[in-house]
Amino acid sequence: METERLGNRIAVVGLGLMGSSIIVSFLKAGYDVVALTPLLEEMEIGAQRIEEQLELCTKMGLLPREKDSYATSYIVTHDYTLLQGCRLVVECVIEVEAIKKEVYARIEREVDANTIIATNTSAIPISHLQQYLQQPNRFMGIHWAEPAYATRFLEITCGKETDVVLAEKIRDEAESWEKEPTLLYKDIRGFITNRLMYAVYREGFNLIHKGHVSMSSLDRCFQYDIGAWITIMGIFRRMDFMGLSEYVNTYNHIFPKLGNLKNVPQQMKGILEEGGRGIHNLNGLYPHTESSADKLEQEFSHFNEEIYRLADKYRKKLNDLNL
Amino acid sequence: METERLGNRIAVVGLGLMGSSIIVSFLKAGYDVVALTPLLEEMEIGAQRIEEQLELCTKMGLLPREKDSYATSYIVTHDYTLLQGCRLVVECVIEVEAIKKEVYARIEREVDANTIIATNTSAIPISHLQQYLQQPNRFMGIHWAEPAYATRFLEITCGKETDVVLAEKIRDEAESWEKEPTLLYKDIRGFITNRLMYAVYREGFNLIHKGHVSMSSLDRCFQYDIGAWITIMGIFRRMDFMGLSEYVNTYNHIFPKLGNLKNVPQQMKGILEEGGRGIHNLNGLYPHTESSADKLEQEFSHFNEEIYRLADKYRKKLNDLNL
Repeated sequence: METERLGNRIAVVGLGLMGSSIIVSFLKAGYDVVALTPLLEEMEIGAQRIEEQLELCTKMGLLPREKDSYATSYIVTHDYTLLQGCRLVVECVIEVEAIKKEVYARIEREVDANTIIATNTSAIPISHLQQYLQQPNRFMGIHWAEPAYATRFLEITCGKETDVVLAEKIRDEAESWEKEPTLLYKDIRGFITNRLMYAVYREGFNLIHKGHVSMSSLDRCFQYDIGAWITIMGIFRRMDFMGLSEYVNTYNHIFPKLGNLKNVPQQMKGILEEGGRGIHNLNGLYPHTESSADKLEQEFSHFNEEIYRLADKYRKKLNDLNL
Repeated sequence: METERLGNRIAVVGLGLMGSSIIVSFLKAGYDVVALTPLLEEMEIGAQRIEEQLELCTKMGLLPREKDSYATSYIVTHDYTLLQGCRLVVECVIEVEAIKKEVYARIEREVDANTIIATNTSAIPISHLQQYLQQPNRFMGIHWAEPAYATRFLEITCGKETDVVLAEKIRDEAESWEKEPTLLYKDIRGFITNRLMYAVYREGFNLIHKGHVSMSSLDRCFQYDIGAWITIMGIFRRMDFMGLSEYVNTYNHIFPKLGNLKNVPQQMKGILEEGGRGIHNLNGLYPHTESSADKLEQEFSHFNEEIYRLADKYRKKLNDLNL
């Protein structure tokens, strides 16, 4: 990493799968990256993960330069003093509050007052983590989807004390990271997609519980109906596309009938009590075998690449029209 | 249409966009089709629509035979006696109860006791329409997505009096129509996808109403997050993919906080009172112009073709494993 480009320097703290994927996303966008691990023993595996992600990103044809040329654009370290001069520090360590608290203290000891500090957490409320900052107004959530360099999704979330101007600045800059950022003015539980998806899960479990439809039947339905348009238009533009007026009766009829379940659905309780982790320990809502789980993971990574390209193609076509 | 293949004969009543698209779907699957319009004046435009849909289906490379060879596989008529010998009659006329009632009476006058009669309605409950049948147990909903020959979505819905065995028979046969059918044992309002999507809309409007996020921000989020996986795995398989256990806390935290709105959201009321029909009259949730609306329709039809192929490719890959 050339020290002259200090103004273009971003740091990522935590070199797990997500952290290393975010690092590659920043490299792809042209930044210099300080890849910091709080754990000395993670240095080697961290460096290896970044290398692997760079390789995958190259295979997808997403890197603007030769892969090897990025070797001078990042540094793997466990020395917090290298955070000095970074404009943005993104924390991606494990979801343990005490560890995050310690990490924030160490970050703030090094960076100057203008540095923005962000967390990739999806488990702990931003306003809650914010209390551990000396200067809480510069702290916010930046939530990626995996792999960070091949997804456009980005949720930027303000905590109670976040300076909204800073969050908007990150949102604007995130477009140059090839993201389609969502700015959330309040750190509501589950942010946006999770909230929306839990509304779907709630109703889905409700319908299955009542015996109206089987789980696989319901999955097929969502997969092939919503899947046929979501990537090009989102949900509200879909309404406009279909012609709004047909929705009026449906609202009045359906809304009062939707389920309002308040806790873990019956169907999941048993599986969860057994520690079911879906394809990861072959105990889930569906039956899985080791080979079917592997195959799904493998095919998903191919699918991911293809849908990214497809989404991008239509995004560009429709962006021309400021849709 | 060769009369010898009578046993392979299906009828579609109503030659609108949906009806003609369903006809092409049946032709593609190798059936002979009686394309019946209740309106003498719809004969010409109906024939033209079928021709156009056949042309589009050909362009997509989805027809197993030369387009011209299908000319002998269907007949456009307004003579109900041609329904004699049809195994299945699908009604696709406009959503006016009195008209549907009349159509069912005329259908039942011609077909024999084994003929299954179905409706493509999405507005009127199946159990309600069923009362107009002399033999209600053979009546069910079969709900397509547009274009019927290039979407895998199919909802088969039982009314109160539908013989479930017949519905299961149609479900099994529908796989040879290249569908991934969903069988709904009870005709709940909105069927399945609509119910699920209304749960999303309810929460979406709730979040926007509370000022947590803007409409376009929310759309982007659903589009790029859910869009990145829905086509390959549906929602419950997604849970297994992510590892179920992480969902427990979320359920308990988020479910009680989801909105439980019971009628048309505030944001839509004004637009609906003005008769807003989205891109169709350029009055919707988003601003539209004639050219942006045209462009969206045009690009959607291209997108539809591409996502159909993509979905199909992964469906085949993963079907090998009976996932």
